[in-house]
Amino acid sequence: MNAQNETRPPKVTVIGAGTIGLGWITLFLGHGLSVTVNSRREKAPELVREGVALYAPHLPEGTLSPDEFAPLLSFEPDIDRAVANTDVVVENAPERLELKQDLFARIGEAAPPDALLLSSTSTFDPDALGARMRYPSNLVVGHPFNPPHVVPLVEVVAGENTTSEAVDRTMDFYRSVGRAPVLLRKPIVAFAANRLQSALLRESVHLVREGVVTVAELDDIVTHSIGLRWATTGPFRAFHLGGGPGGLRAWLATLGANLDRGWELLGSPSMDEETISMLVAQADEAFGDRSYPDLVRERDNLQSAVLKALAPAAERLPDGPEEVASA
Amino acid sequence: MNAQNETRPPKVTVIGAGTIGLGWITLFLGHGLSVTVNSRREKAPELVREGVALYAPHLPEGTLSPDEFAPLLSFEPDIDRAVANTDVVVENAPERLELKQDLFARIGEAAPPDALLLSSTSTFDPDALGARMRYPSNLVVGHPFNPPHVVPLVEVVAGENTTSEAVDRTMDFYRSVGRAPVLLRKPIVAFAANRLQSALLRESVHLVREGVVTVAELDDIVTHSIGLRWATTGPFRAFHLGGGPGGLRAWLATLGANLDRGWELLGSPSMDEETISMLVAQADEAFGDRSYPDLVRERDNLQSAVLKALAPAAERLPDGPEEVASA
Repeated sequence: MNAQNETRPPKVTVIGAGTIGLGWITLFLGHGLSVTVNSRREKAPELVREGVALYAPHLPEGTLSPDEFAPLLSFEPDIDRAVANTDVVVENAPERLELKQDLFARIGEAAPPDALLLSSTSTFDPDALGARMRYPSNLVVGHPFNPPHVVPLVEVVAGENTTSEAVDRTMDFYRSVGRAPVLLRKPIVAFAANRLQSALLRESVHLVREGVVTVAELDDIVTHSIGLRWATTGPFRAFHLGGGPGGLRAWLATLGANLDRGWELLGSPSMDEETISMLVAQADEAFGDRSYPDLVRERDNLQSAVLKALAPAAERLPDGPEEVASA
Repeated sequence: MNAQNETRPPKVTVIGAGTIGLGWITLFLGHGLSVTVNSRREKAPELVREGVALYAPHLPEGTLSPDEFAPLLSFEPDIDRAVANTDVVVENAPERLELKQDLFARIGEAAPPDALLLSSTSTFDPDALGARMRYPSNLVVGHPFNPPHVVPLVEVVAGENTTSEAVDRTMDFYRSVGRAPVLLRKPIVAFAANRLQSALLRESVHLVREGVVTVAELDDIVTHSIGLRWATTGPFRAFHLGGGPGGLRAWLATLGANLDRGWELLGSPSMDEETISMLVAQADEAFGDRSYPDLVRERDNLQSAVLKALAPAAERLPDGPEEVASA
């Protein structure tokens, strides 16, 4: 029953088959795990099979044919039965606290006592999610970045009641399916990645609203500079190198005071009607001639290509990005 | 004498042979341009030849052997003579306004009247740089992202006195050496990319100072999520897709108000002694066991690998990132 049982892969129950749920299902099947899906969607089996077939080609590990994943995939609309005999539960219900609290209270009673209970929430911490549970010790937040079968990051958040063993098992579980989990040392509203994203978006909106660049030009600036940089070299490492042989210390010694002044100059736009209209009109102009599935496929193809390019580099280097992850 | 002369590649004069100057020299040589270097550094020829040999393997286009670049490279310590017979001047002097103003006043008199005069400054706009010139019409800022022979972005900024013909020639020139120039529609302090970088750094410092993550963990979060995303898909395009088939309009309709609230929650750290000490200690812990050249080589190798992976994808797709750049 233990997820770290070395003799067989863990059985996973995925609750919810929206975009995130489908991504997880695809990823787990791609790693040969058996997956039970609990979904309230009508015709869930058909929708999930179609979704997996659509997502599977973007798995960094390669493709998975319908013949291969069919025997690993099952459906159980009854939540109690869906979790009764599982090793790991991955919850992807809508972001409503009461709904999730009820769900975890019920899962806590129906799942085996040592099952790992993971939530993909981007909003709530484990203490809030587990408020109605008798034993919330195995409840851990594992917040993925969309789509979870492509983007490696999972932000892991433990609660007051979470055991360190459950955290360790969570990290091992995500690593076993090729993810890059990072354990936050304390909960914070919106976790880390979305806060960073939000900070960059704020200045992006400011630059467009000020008429310095358009939406399309802003995107070009990012992909051709800081995006490329940050896909390979985190911001602190980048500035450490920006300081030359003297490292971050040298960089901050020359630029430390300028940073404070530069931060004061950053914009603080508000998302009023006029700003929203401007952004939407420019986005329509930039992307409106392409269909949603077409743009999604391009995004996932490009991200998979980057991950494939970086994988051998990370392996080749004894202290590459993957190693730092576990430091 | 025209940089866009189609019968022969332009002759380029690079002023300054620091990190940025060396990157430009390597890039131009890699594209078969003849380069005259004007540098005040002692033993400039030896230093430049060593630098080019070190940087050349990171050219996305491949490697350039010393035998190939030697005949294209010359040195002229006299500034008047260095620019007297050139098509394009690329200035990389230290970031001091008076020094650059004097330099451009002199270049303006000594260079051919139709030579393109480009500055790599990250600080000053063309009107300030050209304040002491008689004819500043060909002076344009082309601010690269370090290192300029690897990272494609060049932020192009025109002044009040810059002609549109000079801007067009500038864009063509950077594209001819494989760069992705983006013309800012108006000057703004620190231009766009560094402002965006600064916005993300501010929240990064906040998260470390609050003890949510360490320097190394913050870097991992970025490389494994938003970095990967933004190397391939700019922030607006990403949020356009985040809205599903309804696009950015749908995304903002559900999250617009939350954005304002989220921005209010972002941190506003100051770079005080304590913060600097904390960051430096954690950076030493994370990167201190690796040498500077080793880390730089890794950064440039990884960035080149990503660019190589994205190049065919961009070509394959009729409306890929490269196409949007010229939209």
